[in-house]
Amino acid sequence: MTAQTIVRVNLEIFTVKKEVIENRGLLLGGRSLTSCIVSGEVPPSAHPLSPENTLVISPSLLAGTSAPNVNRLSIGAKSPLTGLIKESNLGGTVPFHLAKLGIAALVLERQPKEGWFYLYVNPRGVEILPAEQYLGLWNYELVERLQRKYGPEVGIISIGPAGEQLLSAATIAGTNLEGMPSRHAGRGGLGAVMGSKRVKAIVVDSQGMDAITYADREAFQRSAKAFARKLIEKSQNTTKYGNLVLVNIINALGGLPTYNFRQGSNDFAEKLSGEYAADILPGRGGRMGHACSPGCVIRCSNIFHDAKGRYITSGLEYETVAMLGSNLGIKSLDEVAPLDRACDEIGLDTIEMGNALAVLAEAGKLEFGDSKAALALIEEVGKGTLLGRILGSGAAVTAKVFGVSRVAVCKGQGLPAYDPRALKGNGVTYATSPMGADHTAGNCLPGRGKPNPHSPEGQVEHSRDNQVRAAALDSTICLYVGHSALKEVAPLLEARYGLPVSEQDLLRLGRETLQRELAFNQLAGAPQVNDLPKFFRDEELPPNALRFDIPLEALQNLFE
Amino acid sequence: MTAQTIVRVNLEIFTVKKEVIENRGLLLGGRSLTSCIVSGEVPPSAHPLSPENTLVISPSLLAGTSAPNVNRLSIGAKSPLTGLIKESNLGGTVPFHLAKLGIAALVLERQPKEGWFYLYVNPRGVEILPAEQYLGLWNYELVERLQRKYGPEVGIISIGPAGEQLLSAATIAGTNLEGMPSRHAGRGGLGAVMGSKRVKAIVVDSQGMDAITYADREAFQRSAKAFARKLIEKSQNTTKYGNLVLVNIINALGGLPTYNFRQGSNDFAEKLSGEYAADILPGRGGRMGHACSPGCVIRCSNIFHDAKGRYITSGLEYETVAMLGSNLGIKSLDEVAPLDRACDEIGLDTIEMGNALAVLAEAGKLEFGDSKAALALIEEVGKGTLLGRILGSGAAVTAKVFGVSRVAVCKGQGLPAYDPRALKGNGVTYATSPMGADHTAGNCLPGRGKPNPHSPEGQVEHSRDNQVRAAALDSTICLYVGHSALKEVAPLLEARYGLPVSEQDLLRLGRETLQRELAFNQLAGAPQVNDLPKFFRDEELPPNALRFDIPLEALQNLFE
Repeated sequence: MTAQTIVRVNLEIFTVKKEVIENRGLLLGGRSLTSCIVSGEVPPSAHPLSPENTLVISPSLLAGTSAPNVNRLSIGAKSPLTGLIKESNLGGTVPFHLAKLGIAALVLERQPKEGWFYLYVNPRGVEILPAEQYLGLWNYELVERLQRKYGPEVGIISIGPAGEQLLSAATIAGTNLEGMPSRHAGRGGLGAVMGSKRVKAIVVDSQGMDAITYADREAFQRSAKAFARKLIEKSQNTTKYGNLVLVNIINALGGLPTYNFRQGSNDFAEKLSGEYAADILPGRGGRMGHACSPGCVIRCSNIFHDAKGRYITSGLEYETVAMLGSNLGIKSLDEVAPLDRACDEIGLDTIEMGNALAVLAEAGKLEFGDSKAALALIEEVGKGTLLGRILGSGAAVTAKVFGVSRVAVCKGQGLPAYDPRALKGNGVTYATSPMGADHTAGNCLPGRGKPNPHSPEGQVEHSRDNQVRAAALDSTICLYVGHSALKEVAPLLEARYGLPVSEQDLLRLGRETLQRELAFNQLAGAPQVNDLPKFFRDEELPPNALRFDIPLEALQNLFE
Repeated sequence: MTAQTIVRVNLEIFTVKKEVIENRGLLLGGRSLTSCIVSGEVPPSAHPLSPENTLVISPSLLAGTSAPNVNRLSIGAKSPLTGLIKESNLGGTVPFHLAKLGIAALVLERQPKEGWFYLYVNPRGVEILPAEQYLGLWNYELVERLQRKYGPEVGIISIGPAGEQLLSAATIAGTNLEGMPSRHAGRGGLGAVMGSKRVKAIVVDSQGMDAITYADREAFQRSAKAFARKLIEKSQNTTKYGNLVLVNIINALGGLPTYNFRQGSNDFAEKLSGEYAADILPGRGGRMGHACSPGCVIRCSNIFHDAKGRYITSGLEYETVAMLGSNLGIKSLDEVAPLDRACDEIGLDTIEMGNALAVLAEAGKLEFGDSKAALALIEEVGKGTLLGRILGSGAAVTAKVFGVSRVAVCKGQGLPAYDPRALKGNGVTYATSPMGADHTAGNCLPGRGKPNPHSPEGQVEHSRDNQVRAAALDSTICLYVGHSALKEVAPLLEARYGLPVSEQDLLRLGRETLQRELAFNQLAGAPQVNDLPKFFRDEELPPNALRFDIPLEALQNLFE
């Protein structure tokens, strides 16, 4: 079996240190490992942009294997946006490469006094190289140049101008299977932490490494195949319509943010939907059913071409379409796609930018529905203007600067694309998750045996359960396999590492991860619960006249 | 006795309502009354700029009387800067007028949908008048125009462009005895709350009202005279050198913020000192020993003229000189005075601006020592530029926008002019006060029988005691009479209101006020303690190599 190592790059004294993980039985990988290292090594009161913060990059525990949907990359640090511990994950090819290199975590420590660098991670080690020639580049051009140098097969994570400017909405981009920087560790401003380390990009190249080994290859293959079949079966709609399938579903539920959370549904959602995308894209040379990472069988991603057949963006996701589309009154995918591309280029969280632009609309500085103006505003961040810096600092800062009180943030973070009045479990998650108002930290979509999302009944339990499961999934596999899939994940881990692993073990891993994160946040001086902005409790959400009505006390008791 | 009333102005439906206070025995006035009304009536989770916030304006309990130093005006609301309850107070003539009108509190409720207004408060009632013609005016011109209309004797509180723009560092200015808008409710962005109510100014006119009456005039006069004598006696240095006397004292103590809290003393402080001011001002037609409010015998204020004898500003205070002077490396009073004037004009907190400009210096956008550039930056706020909006949103926002990690804020508020490593009791107050990092909420200057400010010993007790006493003083009289003066205040209240009042009663009032404020903050979801920025614990402060070393646990137990 390839030795599993933690590779530490100290960017103050330019050293690279390897630690060998001797006992994989601890099941630390992905989020469980990033949160373990961040909570154990970063002083909770450290400023997120100071040398004391640490950026931890860890592939999921099953990355690199032949199981389906396992190539996920967790990135963790103390967040400049929330001031809390953060993990944000993405697909693409980098986790696959890191896993093949036997790297369980790449840890960026400290920061240089000057200069900019990029890392070349390859079978011989980690090279720290000068990056001055890449400064200011947007992600697509940056990646293209690096691919020219290192070949098309490498995986790359990188920051755009937003991360260079240390802005709190900055992402870390990762290349997808086509080598496009369209996957993002989007939430919490981790791109600014990478920027504070003065690392513009990390090129990961596993060429020449042997394939991953297994404690029990046959058992692994058997479990993997059965699991893949099941996923393919149950994901048919997602494969067909991408995760954009959610547009019509959440619109019908009355929870689709529209006009800065003034409505939960609208009459233009159809043109933003996955069904519509599936209609138009094939004729344009784009496609649905796109896999962003090796071995993905759900294929929720897409490749979006415009009406003239030109590539615009890839992985146009529900969150983006809701927050940069319907919530801004922007009414078609053709208008949203360039906004997504601009965010991918500049390295910006589409959810945070959607909320920040909605704040500008409240301030009378943007008309709802004006996608051209929205694009120009996003590009301000890329240009490094003052307005760009403000927007790139996120919705809460934008609201302060423009004196706007209607701002959908919780724990400093813009709300994702599920109005918490119509999806009350999500509201519970926003208020209580150590991750802030995050769409992946315990999303409570309705389903068989699940609480009615309009009712307060059962939401606290539903959120808690999904928060635990999400923490375990974020350590092992793509969240899209579903919160209930831990029982299928357990035998894969067992066959991979030769250790007894049950669903219960994974639930314990999820709980322990959450506990670590909550403890860090407490030491950082943060309250465990932040109530949602008051307007969610006061204003009735059309069309179902819903309010967020989970008692604060119930939120406070969630983790007790 | 003049009836004591609470006057409520509802700015949504334009009504004025009077409540009569039947039992003054509750001793609610000044901060104790603003915090009582705010904590009782504002939903803790309300957005500070929403109609649900309330702005409460209350003269101290002894305002209007013939006792010394009693004309203080408390202004309270939920703060847009800290998200906590806030009281900020000022002197000037408005508290005197309000007291003569029998108004214990003027409460601004709700907000208009459009239009701007000013209030004319006079013996016949409160008029709500259109203010469009005054919009955009800086405070000096605004006040001049209103004085032209209402006569020189009225008192005026007002907001400048910062408050109009709803910026979190916006103050509420109040006129001094010469009718200049140089006194400010500086901290916490209360000017933005007044701006959110769309109230540009409040003109208070008590002409025609009878003098204040007393339950026991003779006892009152006797106590007042003895107290005045004592204050005059013990304040000789302050009268001579103003509160600028602190410059040399704090510099000698090694606690004078210099170059964004990198040093605790410097070799240019002499030119910023009260001694220096006392040397130069008389020859220029300015003066020390200026009283800002009727009946002040300490006279810590000054009138500052430039070398050509032209009026520049009034009430150039220690905090301003330290934060806009030494902490920015600006080395003379002649350079600081125009910065103070600009802040007074635009309606900006000099402490918050000093910290925000220090952040810009960290970002390489301002040279330490460049007072001309600093002035131009402050004026950006007045012009309403984007950079002005950023700076006017305070140091924390400025740091986020420019990706700066060295920022001296606690509870969202810029630190005042006492480095917490050299004045450790102040550090305790910054971290624990419900008011945020405030210089008046429990300042722990050294003195006979007081802890050594360099030592951690006894600081928690000292801060707690002073926080209680400050809350009581802020309800009754100017803080400058000293934390130990409550025993002289008690007989004054007794003779004024005909109620038995002891020093113990006042301490209880202070404690109850703090408890109300802490409870509000807790319901607002804020932690009671926010540790100081980590660099205060890590970096040794020259010249005494001091760190902030009060254990976090001791801070957390302060109010238990």
